[in-house]
Amino acid sequence: MITVYGFSSSGNCHKLKLLLAQLGRRLDKDYRWIEIDSSRGETRTPAFLAKNPNGRVPLIELDDGRRMAESNAILCWLAEGTPYFTGDAWQRAQALSWMFFEQYSHEPCIAVARFIRGWTPAGSPRRAELPNLRERGHQALAVMERHLLSAPWFTGVDYGIADIALFAYTDVAGEGGFDLAPYPAIRDWLARVRATPGFVPMPPPSAEAAARIASTD
Amino acid sequence: MITVYGFSSSGNCHKLKLLLAQLGRRLDKDYRWIEIDSSRGETRTPAFLAKNPNGRVPLIELDDGRRMAESNAILCWLAEGTPYFTGDAWQRAQALSWMFFEQYSHEPCIAVARFIRGWTPAGSPRRAELPNLRERGHQALAVMERHLLSAPWFTGVDYGIADIALFAYTDVAGEGGFDLAPYPAIRDWLARVRATPGFVPMPPPSAEAAARIASTD
Repeated sequence: MITVYGFSSSGNCHKLKLLLAQLGRRLDKDYRWIEIDSSRGETRTPAFLAKNPNGRVPLIELDDGRRMAESNAILCWLAEGTPYFTGDAWQRAQALSWMFFEQYSHEPCIAVARFIRGWTPAGSPRRAELPNLRERGHQALAVMERHLLSAPWFTGVDYGIADIALFAYTDVAGEGGFDLAPYPAIRDWLARVRATPGFVPMPPPSAEAAARIASTD
Repeated sequence: MITVYGFSSSGNCHKLKLLLAQLGRRLDKDYRWIEIDSSRGETRTPAFLAKNPNGRVPLIELDDGRRMAESNAILCWLAEGTPYFTGDAWQRAQALSWMFFEQYSHEPCIAVARFIRGWTPAGSPRRAELPNLRERGHQALAVMERHLLSAPWFTGVDYGIADIALFAYTDVAGEGGFDLAPYPAIRDWLARVRATPGFVPMPPPSAEAAARIASTD
């Protein structure tokens, strides 16, 4: 059985839950989920740092004790040999290219803006980062919009792990303060992802986080 | 022939030059290099943005017009079927895990600190970012050091693309203000990488950049 250490409100963690569901892997039969609330410091305890010295979720652990960090690398491993990561070397590297784009140019803006708005107190000095994150996040969204004008998916010919990686925080970009109205191709793609077989949505933020998000400009 | 659009002072770009050299691919025979100085805005021109809407180097272009962005994805494509990216699905995903770590937890601190010190003017407001980047960069170096206490390489049993990805900015971390004295395992690993067949070092920064680095605390 695979053990997933994850925070349910994290898009990076939800990526795994979504792919596992679409692969037909069942909770508590094929994998177990151990909730680790990174917003409350649970990824920085000595016990967790012994498992992942980088102090981040998601992390997976196999029954023989082997572990793997980094959401997008875990997606690659889970999807190996499945329709979610196919094609020749060029096509698979293009999917990886979008996944590196996600972690470098998208997540650090859109996910971090969402985290600051929902999971830091109203007076947090981190809120000063929001204008810059908004500008850079919109640049990332514009790159995605442009791609989707000529292609239906990010992974290749079909839906797959690069779409799962980019869907995670794009679908909740509104919680980060990003209005997706100017991006019709992204909105259509989000709808296509939601319609894929076995899709499961990310749970809504806690009432506390939702209230913070609602009260942030 | 592969066309590489790259900035010679960029570690992300040098990754490709190093792997191409180690694969025996020769400049101006197997690939051409087009210098794009990202520090002077050359990645943000309309002509370059038409090639890579994300406005970053490196970018590769094939003779049939296909292009690929993201240094670490390009490494995967170049190394496919070679000894630089081997192993089973788990091992290859572990190499990818280190490459995602590099782009998320290492490069945005160590490479960005180096860029700010060498390629922004002394009075740049970006210099206020340096203390935070230094703290987070040392966290990334500590994660690497810990790994190297029990394994000689990041890619797997042997040297490969995850080592190339992490070597790029670790080898010039001093230019970013990072003293590697507390990391003996990293220093040994850097020496092992430098001793691999076909290794080529990154060129030193320009005199102007070197002077800025020397005059920064």
